[in-house]
Amino acid sequence: MGDAVKAIVVPSPGPAEVMHWTSVDTPAPGPGELLVDVRASGVNNADILQRQGAYPVPTGDSPLLGLECAGVVRALGEGVDGWAVGDEVCALLNGGGYAEQVAVPAAQVLPKPATLTFEEAAALPEAACTVVSNVGMGAGLRAGETFLVHGGTSGIGTFAIQWAKAIGAGVLTTAGTHRKTDRARDLGADEAINYRQEDFVAAVLAATGGRGADVILDVVGAPYLDRNVHCLAPDGRLVIIGGSVSPASLDLAALMTRRGSVSATTLRARGSEQKARIVSTVRDEVWPLVEQGLIRPVIDTVVPVTEASRAHRVLEEGQAVGKVVLVI
Amino acid sequence: MGDAVKAIVVPSPGPAEVMHWTSVDTPAPGPGELLVDVRASGVNNADILQRQGAYPVPTGDSPLLGLECAGVVRALGEGVDGWAVGDEVCALLNGGGYAEQVAVPAAQVLPKPATLTFEEAAALPEAACTVVSNVGMGAGLRAGETFLVHGGTSGIGTFAIQWAKAIGAGVLTTAGTHRKTDRARDLGADEAINYRQEDFVAAVLAATGGRGADVILDVVGAPYLDRNVHCLAPDGRLVIIGGSVSPASLDLAALMTRRGSVSATTLRARGSEQKARIVSTVRDEVWPLVEQGLIRPVIDTVVPVTEASRAHRVLEEGQAVGKVVLVI
Repeated sequence: MGDAVKAIVVPSPGPAEVMHWTSVDTPAPGPGELLVDVRASGVNNADILQRQGAYPVPTGDSPLLGLECAGVVRALGEGVDGWAVGDEVCALLNGGGYAEQVAVPAAQVLPKPATLTFEEAAALPEAACTVVSNVGMGAGLRAGETFLVHGGTSGIGTFAIQWAKAIGAGVLTTAGTHRKTDRARDLGADEAINYRQEDFVAAVLAATGGRGADVILDVVGAPYLDRNVHCLAPDGRLVIIGGSVSPASLDLAALMTRRGSVSATTLRARGSEQKARIVSTVRDEVWPLVEQGLIRPVIDTVVPVTEASRAHRVLEEGQAVGKVVLVI
Repeated sequence: MGDAVKAIVVPSPGPAEVMHWTSVDTPAPGPGELLVDVRASGVNNADILQRQGAYPVPTGDSPLLGLECAGVVRALGEGVDGWAVGDEVCALLNGGGYAEQVAVPAAQVLPKPATLTFEEAAALPEAACTVVSNVGMGAGLRAGETFLVHGGTSGIGTFAIQWAKAIGAGVLTTAGTHRKTDRARDLGADEAINYRQEDFVAAVLAATGGRGADVILDVVGAPYLDRNVHCLAPDGRLVIIGGSVSPASLDLAALMTRRGSVSATTLRARGSEQKARIVSTVRDEVWPLVEQGLIRPVIDTVVPVTEASRAHRVLEEGQAVGKVVLVI
């Protein structure tokens, strides 16, 4: 495998401009892995943190950027069942998506929904796996419950709103502009709160008759901890998946009164067994909703991978509604 | 029902001596309730807080002390199935256990295990329901996982150690004297840490090869929050059921690194539907272990109900190993 393929590399941590498209060793699919010809790759906040040197790559994972992709199976590693060369797929990656080829454990691969383009399919794995693992499998959001997702127009947010509506939950969300709250309502949010103009705790309590949200998915972290706890419903579950993780004050009395819980997770650090279980749940429970058109990936911008710097800048500016996707 | 029965009353909040044994109205079993002739009643920390005026009684519940009892069914309310006058039972009460008679929802009643005395059976419902609801149903402790329970010789602790061992978990516990750590080991704890002599975080990490505890049951609250989070294993769950609930600093980075969760609950505030589900789980999953002798109630002191003040003082002094029980 001395051959070379092209990929985005980050010679040293820095601003978006440090990234460039250059030759790297061709990835080799290990036992149980697929080699995929990448057609499109989703951009995530974790990529930006990694580029800045603020997100250490888990031991053993590719040091290259890119946590999700869509493409075509090019080769099968030893012992892979259920996939064939030429299959159209998308995948949750352990890195390496910003490249012409990537090796990925077969258990993290999903069939590309026939109704979606490669760009659209590349926009789904991270959001679907993050939301389903944390809100579905972890917090156990059920039909009839109320779900609050902060940042309703992010990649995570646009997916979470549609998924929660599709499973029968009531959906509240926050966003920072009227354009964004409008888009969030278009996606199915029952209520979209402009957090720059309203206190979201009061707005959530008003929208729920004083009860609060059963499940909150948070990407803000420490600055919202206290406020999130105060708008949890009885038996409510707050799940923090990003933002500032500096120490924050937790109002235990408020938590106990609600019989509430606070959890904090990242998808990337999960082991391969957990990732396999999550991807399998996404395939069983989310893919049918995608195929029925109940969930549509929301894409803000598509950029050639050679201009990955521009893609990062779009995400960093914070005005995107939905995902930024690279095409290879 | 103008008849009178005797019960402990608290004319106004204060020290143990304010309690006295006097006549009160005979409780009437409402629809779906049983009237029980109380033979013994367990004493809980919540009773002490209630006596001090620090634990508001949930709306609609008996204002009398006593959250668990054992006795004999005296009468059936309307629509009660599955129980008969004369049945020997124990029960999770919504108050009123320090009395000759108490009315209780049928769904919170358990058959008295034939192997136990009334005193022993009265010592089980609160501990069993608290531990099973929080550690079993809530945190999902499984065989092969490591469980840390603080206060291993409390009523909760002595039950939790035996139950967790019986379901196949490894058990660590803390206590404040050598006599208590010895008793905790006798009950089955793999490791009992004297928290006055050792840093329990270091001791838990040492006992688990640096991994930490999968589930922690805590009764200390705010002062232990940070330390508990730092000895959680990956995917670990911290459950706080008492202690100081003043605001406390939560290390979100440490929680996220572990994909951990923190929840805070009380049994008493749960609704009747939740209590029914918990009692039914205790009957299905804990009663067989009690009948097999794998779990034995641990009783420190038995006191006549007329001397309830003495019972409270024993618990308040903090030297009890196991439960303090009143006999009526």
